[in-house]
Amino acid sequence: MDASVILGIVGSLRRTSYNHYALKAACELAPDGVELKLIELHDIPVYNQDDELAPPAAVVEFKRQIRAADAVLFCSPEYNYSVPGGLKNAIDWASRPYGDSAWRGKAAAVMGASIGALGTARAQYHLRQILVTLDMPTVTQPEVMIANAAQHFDKDGRLTDEPTRQLIQKLLEALAALIRINRNMED
Amino acid sequence: MDASVILGIVGSLRRTSYNHYALKAACELAPDGVELKLIELHDIPVYNQDDELAPPAAVVEFKRQIRAADAVLFCSPEYNYSVPGGLKNAIDWASRPYGDSAWRGKAAAVMGASIGALGTARAQYHLRQILVTLDMPTVTQPEVMIANAAQHFDKDGRLTDEPTRQLIQKLLEALAALIRINRNMED
Amino acid sequence: MDASVILGIVGSLRRTSYNHYALKAACELAPDGVELKLIELHDIPVYNQDDELAPPAAVVEFKRQIRAADAVLFCSPEYNYSVPGGLKNAIDWASRPYGDSAWRGKAAAVMGASIGALGTARAQYHLRQILVTLDMPTVTQPEVMIANAAQHFDKDGRLTDEPTRQLIQKLLEALAALIRINRNMED
Amino acid sequence: MDASVILGIVGSLRRTSYNHYALKAACELAPDGVELKLIELHDIPVYNQDDELAPPAAVVEFKRQIRAADAVLFCSPEYNYSVPGGLKNAIDWASRPYGDSAWRGKAAAVMGASIGALGTARAQYHLRQILVTLDMPTVTQPEVMIANAAQHFDKDGRLTDEPTRQLIQKLLEALAALIRINRNMED
Repeated sequence: MDASVILGIVGSLRRTSYNHYALKAACELAPDGVELKLIELHDIPVYNQDDELAPPAAVVEFKRQIRAADAVLFCSPEYNYSVPGGLKNAIDWASRPYGDSAWRGKAAAVMGASIGALGTARAQYHLRQILVTLDMPTVTQPEVMIANAAQHFDKDGRLTDEPTRQLIQKLLEALAALIRINRNMED
Repeated sequence: MDASVILGIVGSLRRTSYNHYALKAACELAPDGVELKLIELHDIPVYNQDDELAPPAAVVEFKRQIRAADAVLFCSPEYNYSVPGGLKNAIDWASRPYGDSAWRGKAAAVMGASIGALGTARAQYHLRQILVTLDMPTVTQPEVMIANAAQHFDKDGRLTDEPTRQLIQKLLEALAALIRINRNMED
Repeated sequence: MDASVILGIVGSLRRTSYNHYALKAACELAPDGVELKLIELHDIPVYNQDDELAPPAAVVEFKRQIRAADAVLFCSPEYNYSVPGGLKNAIDWASRPYGDSAWRGKAAAVMGASIGALGTARAQYHLRQILVTLDMPTVTQPEVMIANAAQHFDKDGRLTDEPTRQLIQKLLEALAALIRINRNMED
Repeated sequence: MDASVILGIVGSLRRTSYNHYALKAACELAPDGVELKLIELHDIPVYNQDDELAPPAAVVEFKRQIRAADAVLFCSPEYNYSVPGGLKNAIDWASRPYGDSAWRGKAAAVMGASIGALGTARAQYHLRQILVTLDMPTVTQPEVMIANAAQHFDKDGRLTDEPTRQLIQKLLEALAALIRINRNMED
């Protein structure tokens, strides 16, 4: 069987964000036979339904990458108690036009890192509601909420906190299990 | 006392959207002494924290308009069971940088129109959670959820359904009451 | 392989509720090899953590029934934009004491019927958030929200609306698929 | 003008709960001219719509106390990522029968304490959604989420953490302001 591919989507456009660093750590922690590919959401403009039948090249490429993957790992900051507008905007683009969503049926997992104490909890529950309509079976447990991020990464952006690394590993194993289920059900 | 100004923000970029039409109806229904000014969110790019200290002109202008208003009326479609990415993105921009949010303390009200049966309910509850952190006192009742929109507007986009017009009128009166409270508390 | 058992939990204590009727319809629609057993939440008192190490008999029996089942189907009204207190209370009891939850790992599905237009949507998304911590893999699609219930049942409480019956059938098939997955992963 | 009365409702039935202690601290911190009266939710059975026209004495008394108060302060633990079933059940009772809700128009504020790191955040956002339908104007900021409660109280249950005491004081001042607004609008 080919290696499984998880698309890791960073919810922030910043060059240096803890969520970017957390996804890099996840790359090292992927189980055998699973490749985690990171992408960022640069160059995707704000969605306008008037343009959805002629989407920009960055959106076409984004949907191609989602479709080529077996699963999606969202790793995002929380903005204003919810999903960042930029990430939600990319989700909206890739779900359209009606009947041509790239998300449908892909397995999903959610994680996030924040400077503050809640570890992006509020954004994660909004995202989970969004994943219901996208029809993406999502890992229930563990939930990975990296609070007080400055204490968990070193100056080079490496995730040094061992319990957090183990939690991410468990999340990836649970996501890999969902991928295997999806493949079996397609056979 | 000067007329109060409510900034009406359309959550959709479409040229012809029911939410645009609903806000136009709201303009006609504003109580005496209240002016409802509509704006659209064109030209606001996707937020990148690396750029927030040098925001684009459209964002500077957007924040200026929020600050010049006494209150904000959000009228938005629901995308994927939540707030459209584009609207959330504009909210994120105007809340930043830290300590310079344009939203803080402005009174708010929420409405929306959908083709389907739920009338943007899911998006409205997500938006209400966002308004908590923006620290915007928000009208609790009535809630205006225009479901099955095609049945409530005529071919020219005029809101013809009388009960819905009365509901919007009540929403605007409740918002005007919040404006009066805000003014009294500033004195 | 033995028949699978789905425990159907009515969220309302009323003798005649549309949610009770909807679950009765679901019993007729269960796929081959799946038995749907209905229970009601009578006799479960309000939870008090001081008593959780000596739970009342009705709670002991409730947990036994959950553990004996392969999956759980919640069918509940919406009270005050959320899960009815009585249903949430039963969920709380069966999740306790810490380390002895009866819910963990059971597959789940959610449906509901309302007199009004939203079909219990708000309660269902709150319940879905609760199912995350209970660690219950939950059917994403279809979602069964029976709005305007009076139009869908006859005077004897029989669900006569054919599209709704088909939707419930799909929900049960999706839940049966989750049961098969759970069984395979235990092998 | 008479003293204002805030009804402080503990969401937990435990004899010794951090939320009980937190409300006791709030009693000491109430602004001049405001009395905070605590009540617990003992003796309220699980709601059954069949009985709502003949409610139990504890419910009649609960509604009387809400009606006699100017505002309500909810202080509750989080159970299973949401409002405790017992608290939601009391809310449901006092909102019924239709047209006879005791909650309507009362000002509200929300706080909570937890052993864990999230400080009841998830329960508070669910409760805020419930307060929308109850039509209760609710303090937006500050939000009082007492995480890691064991570090903030001494062995006698006294809230010793000074920043938390100040936050509660601000919450009560904001609630007192909502009471003044309500009174002015009734004049």
